[in-house]
Parts: sequence; structure tokens; C-alpha cells
Amino acid sequence: MSDVIEMSPIGVIHSAFDEKFGIPRQPGLTQSLTATVELLPPYGSPEAVRGLEGCSHIWLLFLFSATAEQGWKPLVRPPRLGGNKRLGVFASRSPFRPNPIGLSPVRLLGVREQNGRILLDVSGADLLDGTPILDIKPYLPYSDVIADAQFDLADRIEKLTLPLHWSAAAQAACDAYSQRLGQPLATQIGELLTYDPRPAYQRDPERVYGLALHGLNIRFRITTVAIDILSISEAEPATPIAE
Amino acid sequence: MSDVIEMSPIGVIHSAFDEKFGIPRQPGLTQSLTATVELLPPYGSPEAVRGLEGCSHIWLLFLFSATAEQGWKPLVRPPRLGGNKRLGVFASRSPFRPNPIGLSPVRLLGVREQNGRILLDVSGADLLDGTPILDIKPYLPYSDVIADAQFDLADRIEKLTLPLHWSAAAQAACDAYSQRLGQPLATQIGELLTYDPRPAYQRDPERVYGLALHGLNIRFRITTVAIDILSISEAEPATPIAE
Repeated sequence: MSDVIEMSPIGVIHSAFDEKFGIPRQPGLTQSLTATVELLPPYGSPEAVRGLEGCSHIWLLFLFSATAEQGWKPLVRPPRLGGNKRLGVFASRSPFRPNPIGLSPVRLLGVREQNGRILLDVSGADLLDGTPILDIKPYLPYSDVIADAQFDLADRIEKLTLPLHWSAAAQAACDAYSQRLGQPLATQIGELLTYDPRPAYQRDPERVYGLALHGLNIRFRITTVAIDILSISEAEPATPIAE
Repeated sequence: MSDVIEMSPIGVIHSAFDEKFGIPRQPGLTQSLTATVELLPPYGSPEAVRGLEGCSHIWLLFLFSATAEQGWKPLVRPPRLGGNKRLGVFASRSPFRPNPIGLSPVRLLGVREQNGRILLDVSGADLLDGTPILDIKPYLPYSDVIADAQFDLADRIEKLTLPLHWSAAAQAACDAYSQRLGQPLATQIGELLTYDPRPAYQRDPERVYGLALHGLNIRFRITTVAIDILSISEAEPATPIAE
């Protein structure tokens, strides 16, 4: 067995997620958000993706590039478990792994060629913009669907049932940016905030957060009675923003 | 984006499959065959697998070590498609990939510690003995089960409906080796042969093949009326054996 294996990215994803904060905690939650996998030369050719268009879903194997240099620890605190309970790294999908490979199933919307590049449009991806892709595999229903699989510690992500309250300014900005970007921004923001991006240990209803999306900064607050979307503007500072 | 990413095996699998020939063409087919993933230092610690025992299934990410040096081509001929039809490498689970990472979901039977080593017993694995393991992840039902996923080109592996005919010698050897190995050898051989390990382009009913399993050589033939198990002996030569 060789001790070191060398891998190279076969592609890169272009997504609306400019920062780690706000990325859904599991793939598949935000189907209104699309992303595009660009295959890099020499991997991107019409031959290499032949037949892929018949595939409803694909696996993205990717490099947790944003956190890869931070290394790994045997125990992690998965956000879904409230950040208090520690789990073994191999019992989690934490990015802080010995080999920082991520695995996400996404819906394949289409395969196209543009300027000699092969592009795969997908939805439900939970990848940071610019994430290097290591492999793409078809999702094979007969082997990948394990209907009786169970994992007690991994509860479904809880969805907030609070109403969305848009400030007048946020609403106007949302309409304008939706048109400019050609994106269903209101739906996307609603989906993202409904899954509560706040850290589990930090649920201060007064605190204002900034969500980076499509290069925009979406300021919001989650109180006990509503999800308040306060403003939407061109992004600049790092998030979360405490005020 | 870094151009080259270095990975190291976190473990190695000990399986009954000594050779590529005969390994089921998809994971999950041979539940009677168990394998053991041994975590290597410094990755194998009780902490690193904490909580994993609550997981019914895990993903094995592994290196296609036996074929990694052969490189990749944009088009592959998946055996399940009869070996005639060519598919893009990214529309297949072929081992001949730019980054030769394999992905298989397996049932987790148990986690144990032996002589300071962490061992994971699994079933349904389709990995060659000695395959380096790159990562272990919990199978998360809510994100990994995609009930409506479809892939037209990927039909379920066909099961032969032919009866199993054991020669008297094979039957006697099977009983003896079952006892010696502590393995349900008859069931295992039945499962493996029922999924027809022969290459799709080579269906000569006279041809005798050798299947390597547990260090044994199982000679068989698949005629139009039966699966004949001819003999079982300590392994030596490479397979398939044409006679």
C-alpha cells in the first residue's frame, strides 16, 4: 500500500455560497439554489460525461478546501447535535477529517458545453463557491438507496416554523437583485433562513447576522416570533456581524 | 486551489476477495460475506469511532489500488451494460477514474477493539482484500436516501435463476472448509455465482472459471441449465482458468 496518494481536482463548483456561514448543514435542503460544476481540462470532455444526462442525481466528491489546512481531531461537535455532544470524526460528516473529502448527493439539472467547457448544473449542493471537485459519480438507486438505514444520532435538520418578516427596504432590494441576478432570491433566502443557520450554542434573538449569498449581504435576525430580514446589500464584511 | 492534494490511507480492509474476478459488481449483493476494516494509527482510536455503533450503514471511501496505476479514459465499458456500450467515466462507477476513489455503502455489523486496533465488521462490501480505506462516513438516511433518484442506464444486476449443482467432491470440500474457516461457504458461493461473475462478452457454457475466495479456488461452470460447482481447493493459480 502506498503511503501517500496524490489527487488533483477534476473540476470546481460555482455556487452562491461565498462564506461557510449560512451553508445548509446537509445537502438537498435548498433546491431553489442552483450551482454549476465546471470540469477542468483534461477531464472535461463530452465523452467523459456521456450518459450522465440520464442521471437524476449525482454524487459530488470534493475537497473541504476552506478547512483542509486546519487538520482533524478524533472528536467533533456536530452542529446538528447542538454543539455540545461530541462524536467520533468517522461517525460524522464533519469537514475536519484525516482525508478532507466531502460527499454530497445533488440533483443534476443538466449537462451543457460552453466555450469548450463542460458544465453540470445542479441543485441542493452545500458547497462553498470555488470548492475543488475530486470526482463525480452517478447516484445508483439500487445500491445507494438503503431504505432501512438508521442512525440514531443523526436527526433530521429542524425547520423553523416562524413566519418570514421582510423589512420594506429588504423587500425592495430583494426584488431588484432578483431581477438583476435572474434568481428566485426571496425563495432562496426563505429556504436558507428556515433551516436556521445560527450556531446551536448561539441563539440570541437580538443578534443580527449577515448571510453571504450571490455576493450579497443579507442581514437577518431570528426572534422568538419571526425571522426578520432586515436588509440586503452588496457584500463587504465577514459574517456573522454582531451589532 | 492547490493542484495536488495528498491523501493517506486511514485503514485497510480485510476481505475474502483475493482477486478482482468474482467480486460482486455492486456493493450490497453478498450479505453473507463479511469483511473487516482495520483502522491504522494514528486514525484508529476509540474516540474517532465514538457513536458509530449507532449507525446501521457506513460509506467506505477507498482507493482502487489494484487498478490505480492503469490511469483513466474518458469512456468506459461498464460490465453491467454488456461490455458493448460505452459510457462517460463520470456516468459510471468504474475504477478507472482520474482520482481513483471508490464509494460503497456497507452494513456495519459492529465496532470492536483488538490488540489496541479498532476494527469495523461490515457486510456487503465489494472490496478486494487489502484495499486502502481513505475515509469512513455514516450513511445519513435523510440526505443519502434519494427515493426518487433515477438512472436509466444502470439496471439492477440480473440474478441467475439456475439451480446450483454441487459435485460430490465440491460438496465435501465445502463442508470441510466451512468448518475450518468458520464461514457459511455454501451460502457465500451461492450468492456470488448467482450474480454471474463471468464477463458479459464471455458466456461460454463449457468454460470453467476459478473464483478466489478466502484463499480457496472455487472452480465452476455456468451452463444453460445449471450453475455447476466442480471443485474447491487451496488456491494457487490466477483466474479465470480456461480448460
